[in-house]
Amino acid sequence: MTSTTTLSLDDCVKADAVDPLREFRREFAIPEGVLYFDGNSLGARPIAAQECAARVIGDEWGNGLVRSWNEAGWFDLPVRLGDKLAPLLGAGEGEVVVTDSTSINLFKALASALSIAAAQDPSRKVIVSERDNFPTDLYIAEGIISLLDQGYELRLIDQPGDLTEAVGPDTAVVMLSHVNYRTGNLYAMTEVTAAVQERGALMIWDLAHSAGAVTVDLSGADADFAVGCTYKYLNGGPGSPAFIWVNRRHQNTGIQPLSGWWGHARPFAMESAYEPGAGIRRFLSGTQPITSLSLVECGLDVMLKADMADIRSKSLALADLFINLVEERCAAYGLELITPRAHERRGSHVSFVHPEGYSIMKALIARGVIGDYREPGVLRFGITPLYLGYADVWNAVDVLRDILENKSWDRPEFRERDAVT
Amino acid sequence: MTSTTTLSLDDCVKADAVDPLREFRREFAIPEGVLYFDGNSLGARPIAAQECAARVIGDEWGNGLVRSWNEAGWFDLPVRLGDKLAPLLGAGEGEVVVTDSTSINLFKALASALSIAAAQDPSRKVIVSERDNFPTDLYIAEGIISLLDQGYELRLIDQPGDLTEAVGPDTAVVMLSHVNYRTGNLYAMTEVTAAVQERGALMIWDLAHSAGAVTVDLSGADADFAVGCTYKYLNGGPGSPAFIWVNRRHQNTGIQPLSGWWGHARPFAMESAYEPGAGIRRFLSGTQPITSLSLVECGLDVMLKADMADIRSKSLALADLFINLVEERCAAYGLELITPRAHERRGSHVSFVHPEGYSIMKALIARGVIGDYREPGVLRFGITPLYLGYADVWNAVDVLRDILENKSWDRPEFRERDAVT
Repeated sequence: MTSTTTLSLDDCVKADAVDPLREFRREFAIPEGVLYFDGNSLGARPIAAQECAARVIGDEWGNGLVRSWNEAGWFDLPVRLGDKLAPLLGAGEGEVVVTDSTSINLFKALASALSIAAAQDPSRKVIVSERDNFPTDLYIAEGIISLLDQGYELRLIDQPGDLTEAVGPDTAVVMLSHVNYRTGNLYAMTEVTAAVQERGALMIWDLAHSAGAVTVDLSGADADFAVGCTYKYLNGGPGSPAFIWVNRRHQNTGIQPLSGWWGHARPFAMESAYEPGAGIRRFLSGTQPITSLSLVECGLDVMLKADMADIRSKSLALADLFINLVEERCAAYGLELITPRAHERRGSHVSFVHPEGYSIMKALIARGVIGDYREPGVLRFGITPLYLGYADVWNAVDVLRDILENKSWDRPEFRERDAVT
Repeated sequence: MTSTTTLSLDDCVKADAVDPLREFRREFAIPEGVLYFDGNSLGARPIAAQECAARVIGDEWGNGLVRSWNEAGWFDLPVRLGDKLAPLLGAGEGEVVVTDSTSINLFKALASALSIAAAQDPSRKVIVSERDNFPTDLYIAEGIISLLDQGYELRLIDQPGDLTEAVGPDTAVVMLSHVNYRTGNLYAMTEVTAAVQERGALMIWDLAHSAGAVTVDLSGADADFAVGCTYKYLNGGPGSPAFIWVNRRHQNTGIQPLSGWWGHARPFAMESAYEPGAGIRRFLSGTQPITSLSLVECGLDVMLKADMADIRSKSLALADLFINLVEERCAAYGLELITPRAHERRGSHVSFVHPEGYSIMKALIARGVIGDYREPGVLRFGITPLYLGYADVWNAVDVLRDILENKSWDRPEFRERDAVT
């Protein structure tokens, strides 16, 4: 295969050799023949996860039985893992819990934020978000609006640039994804938070595509609430529990309506009246899925050994390389980049639109290059610096070019829609 | 050791030999030296769970990676497991999903039920429950009442017998645990549901201590909503996801405010407006913890091989034996039975109150007889016919008698409170 790019595979191999994160790949189980560009959807499996699960299931559950609530520290896992995750979010101890799903945690954040906003100014009835936000965020906002039935409305902007204009004296809360799931657009957290708060609204960030992917500084930005997931860049395993961060100034105010017993001040006193626990514990609700929750620690333990600045700079370099190679080698085939080029506006995935995007992605996956497809027409490639290298990017684009050149995506089996895309 | 009971260990050994469920014990990993009477808190580990976890983590996550959402059927797990669980609840296909926690599912059920009740008669503002209900149920009711801020109130009865009097023309919803977590009291589901519905209210059952423990017939009772957990008698593993059952007549009406993307009619179309899926799928919310969720199937697979009528009749026989032995052999030591004696009023655990209950339970656990303690003063013993036999009951009571006779609970280490009781 001849290369038409100004950068050769050889250059990539050399870049890998001096990559300070190169050794991290050994911590992950990547199947033979797979180039995995979907860690932004489901992170790869840390090698240690298998042993961790065997310990939780064999020793803690099997032998410890109910005693493990104390002896294995199950009950405190959401708080302990939250504290462990906190540095990756620019957060402090006692500010994060790992629990429930992102959707459920967003409901808690919205309910709290709306009640705090209403206490200050009940005339603020608007939740501002983005039409292109991850759908579950918008659906949950719709859910709470419909439940409350108090005249709240959801105002959706069409472009990131429309934000400040959309936030006004009627706005209670702004709810945005820090990194957009489709385009990879990255908001300037500090500036946006400040602009929102200056206009008298509260700021909720969804960090699903940020945690472990880009540098996050919730404390520096002095945001109000944040939620996010652990199964993408944090490699916690399929559907592993999500997290919620609450600024200390809001932890003991506002309504947290999913007030299950894990959030009670004295859960084992079995009192009939709810009294919220102090601090972040109030944001816990019911009993947590301990096996899935325990696996979150394996992913965090790997991530915390790396330097987040190294991860970010390699992520940007790999994504630049991906974009450059696609533009040089696949220029003839109609791929349109929808990810911002500017580093300060870009998360850790790269997306291209193509009218045949769905079939092209299926053809890629059949060749072992696993990215994913998002409506409408988006080919998404996640950049995960702990287990991807420069040569991987070169090889992935090489397969992409071959598929496009030979139109090998144009087969019936690549048109057939899967239930989950 | 001499026995003062009319029933000897020998009789128990003989009863075990002809027990039709005896072979099920081999399906569970019970540690050497443990008599496990806490399956009502955390069910024992099915042997198959270890292999199941290794498959989910190694093959499905590790090798399948993101492809497993389709290829391993992850996305449909909540519905598939719900259909599998349904027969144990007297429910049909498409009526149950296994998802989230009991607390979260109760919030969904309450929100739906209240909105349905309000559509019929907005003046009905009372939720009736029981002061002695499992606390999280009451806390969640408080949470939704406080969030809605529409004049709802929680009315708590002090005795099961007070129920019908408490339900009147002001009542929107009645929410009860079918089997009481403390006393083991069992409500007559069909009669209570009919009485509640005759008074114009909706009936929500919490089946946490019922599913897999007693015969349940939600369809026969024509109840409105039910929730419950899978980590007790269903042996799904620590904190494994809970379930929600919704009567078909309510599935497409009412508000389900935790409207995450898994409940959308077309979750992967990534539409910005929420459109609920048809039927029970509307009660899904966010992404589920696949490892913990997958393990639920191991417990169900064992349970479904047994006959629920055999389980129930052995449960009653073991509990009768436990009660009789305690009353005969421990009569001098002040244990007071708080579990109903009548079979039709009793679930699958037996509880005694004792002023030194906490220390006695710690002494029992130190001797390998694992029950648990619940405030105030309650020693709780779960009866799980799949892995407990008649001789186990005899041996457990023998240890209890010894501890009481020798006052060996009266030690500092047995007074020290654990974080989780």
